[in-house]
Amino acid sequence: MSTAWTSRYAQRTKAIRSSAIRELLKITQNPEIISFAGGLPAPDVFPTKRFREACCKVLDNQAQLALQYGATEGYEPLREMIARHTSRYGVKAKAENVLITSGSQQALDLIGKLLINPGDRVLVEAPTYLGALQAFNVYGAEYISVPSDNDGLCTSLLEEPLRSGPKFMYVLPNFQNPGGTTLAEGRRHELVLLADRYGIPIIEDDPYGQLRYEGEHLPPLVVLDRENLRRDDGYSIGNVLYLSTFSKTLSPGLRLGWIVAPPDVISKLVQLKQGADLHTSTFGQMVAYEVARDGFLDEHIKLIRHVYGERRDVMLQALAENFPPEVTWTRPLGGLFLWVTLPMGMDSHQLFEAALKQNVAFVPGDSFYAGNGYASEGLRHLRLNFSNANPEQIKEGIRRLSVAIKNQLSGLQREPVAH
Amino acid sequence: MSTAWTSRYAQRTKAIRSSAIRELLKITQNPEIISFAGGLPAPDVFPTKRFREACCKVLDNQAQLALQYGATEGYEPLREMIARHTSRYGVKAKAENVLITSGSQQALDLIGKLLINPGDRVLVEAPTYLGALQAFNVYGAEYISVPSDNDGLCTSLLEEPLRSGPKFMYVLPNFQNPGGTTLAEGRRHELVLLADRYGIPIIEDDPYGQLRYEGEHLPPLVVLDRENLRRDDGYSIGNVLYLSTFSKTLSPGLRLGWIVAPPDVISKLVQLKQGADLHTSTFGQMVAYEVARDGFLDEHIKLIRHVYGERRDVMLQALAENFPPEVTWTRPLGGLFLWVTLPMGMDSHQLFEAALKQNVAFVPGDSFYAGNGYASEGLRHLRLNFSNANPEQIKEGIRRLSVAIKNQLSGLQREPVAH
Repeated sequence: MSTAWTSRYAQRTKAIRSSAIRELLKITQNPEIISFAGGLPAPDVFPTKRFREACCKVLDNQAQLALQYGATEGYEPLREMIARHTSRYGVKAKAENVLITSGSQQALDLIGKLLINPGDRVLVEAPTYLGALQAFNVYGAEYISVPSDNDGLCTSLLEEPLRSGPKFMYVLPNFQNPGGTTLAEGRRHELVLLADRYGIPIIEDDPYGQLRYEGEHLPPLVVLDRENLRRDDGYSIGNVLYLSTFSKTLSPGLRLGWIVAPPDVISKLVQLKQGADLHTSTFGQMVAYEVARDGFLDEHIKLIRHVYGERRDVMLQALAENFPPEVTWTRPLGGLFLWVTLPMGMDSHQLFEAALKQNVAFVPGDSFYAGNGYASEGLRHLRLNFSNANPEQIKEGIRRLSVAIKNQLSGLQREPVAH
Repeated sequence: MSTAWTSRYAQRTKAIRSSAIRELLKITQNPEIISFAGGLPAPDVFPTKRFREACCKVLDNQAQLALQYGATEGYEPLREMIARHTSRYGVKAKAENVLITSGSQQALDLIGKLLINPGDRVLVEAPTYLGALQAFNVYGAEYISVPSDNDGLCTSLLEEPLRSGPKFMYVLPNFQNPGGTTLAEGRRHELVLLADRYGIPIIEDDPYGQLRYEGEHLPPLVVLDRENLRRDDGYSIGNVLYLSTFSKTLSPGLRLGWIVAPPDVISKLVQLKQGADLHTSTFGQMVAYEVARDGFLDEHIKLIRHVYGERRDVMLQALAENFPPEVTWTRPLGGLFLWVTLPMGMDSHQLFEAALKQNVAFVPGDSFYAGNGYASEGLRHLRLNFSNANPEQIKEGIRRLSVAIKNQLSGLQREPVAH
């Protein structure tokens, strides 16, 4: 029967392949495996008690509102709260600049729907967030990949790609997924100026910005765009759409993200969201609002920074103690991930198979590159998550992974060099 | 600034206009207005206490699961429960046949994404559900509209349209939105046979099926497809994808719907959903499961049937007592809506303006027709919702509406006939 359906699938579905991460997550549900593969927050720091109180409060006082259909734009007090939080960095956002989305992933989907015609090119970092590629692929995006280094996207290499006319740029300036790198302040200024010069809008994805474990907060692109270019349209949001989420601060299970944008872009996105899911769970939004309010979110983020910062340190130390000198890695200032580079000739997919036998998992790097030009580069990398496993698991997992790496490496050295 | 964005919108966004219902709902938030416009459940029958218990239970016992990322397919116990419920009608669905969606609206969006190439024609009822048109429009759908009468879609008129090769059919067999009509049993058999003969798949949208106030439950198309055509592929789901939701039984605010489909279609939809929002709220799914389980959903549906059935009766009686004889309406056996036909020459948009002055609202009928061929037909109709207002409000609202209708009608009769 099903073949009757297969023959009816739309063209765009050909761009879709099952995500490597998704398949990996299935394998790694085996409790014996220590997984550095997902991007999962630590479940032991979820503010469960506060959630319980918030649920009771919402259902005791506002159940008829919470369980009913709501506005597509989102729950008004939550939009106002997000506007206030965003404004701390100088964006002067109002509630009308905020659209609540069903996770940041839906923000990416709606932006793809809004902006991408089949064949349009999107400028992305190499490597970049896999979920963005998945969201954009379905709308027929092509990509221009610009390399990044320890200071993030290499803005010195931007002019030529910008001149070739991408539809927009997609960047993760803070503690990038998967690289773990942070865009340096000078480069941020350069980026918004170049974007303005060539008239290329920026999608700034900032799911991890609050999770900084050392150093000073750097200004978001959406703020620099206003400051550098002296924009003053009342809302201070011009060439940059800013995305963030509660997934890494309160709970990913609620699926709550948001887009900060000029009101007419919000209005168009609202129409698209209406067709996509009418609105995000009213109850979920009201509970998140009750959890976050009265300064709780800020306090909770301090706890998360403490816990994840420690885990990052444990992983960095375990890497230094266990990994052979041929292997290098980034040193993230925040976020959830670091990025490992294997020596030439090693293959992260072969390593993945070997690592699974040692009961440890990660994501091979090739998933994070757009297009085919980076296939061999991708195979030299792997992404490690340090937020989900506890310190003891991190030490043991890195020990196991180093065994797999050393085995592969000695096999490689035994093999005669081809040609 | 914003014009810079406007010039970058994708082609597909041209197909989107702000929904009439959406704008109307804004107007009708004025508490003095009695609104028959939305499709809102009665907030006073939400099972608030049960929701409170379920939230506490989930957060006390499974918080780390509930607040974490989950599988794109949905929460397994909920998928199993939905498979069991669906199987009551003879579909023999398993959990792997069920994809949990962020409301039925997301099911429609994913189906549009999966099946519609720009220019593909979708066969729909005239009138049909506005939200489906919104979901399909963005993928470039064209439409073939087939009229319906008191027995639902006129299957005697189907052969010619089917021969012209639509990509699929979209039908609401039970207590249709907006018509309030139910597809007669004989026509159901005819429909699946014709669909099979011409190889045209069916999307069966059944949000209201459980809300029957009189008469016997009729077999869903997905069941007849198996029985009539002696399909036996293990899952009994072949040419029909079946959609339903908790929005009209437990709560629309949770945004929980589902698609029942063959496993390979589910697998493709899962890939699309992953790019669209990763997954539906884990917490929301677990709470809904705890609310629905142990027979509660069935008991609660009995209560809803009782309350809504009474409201339907009150509205039908008020219409009979107040409306002038030139106006007719459908008599729904279930669901949330009935469909009013105005006499020739009246215009439901003009009536809407006049009704607002009387502090009563409805949705003008033209929103529910695909394409332009039905513009004048649409203006002769209005959709009335009877689930949201209480009996006293229904009586008063219909009285007010009848004043507006009589005023319009006498104005019409005073005007000299043109030409």
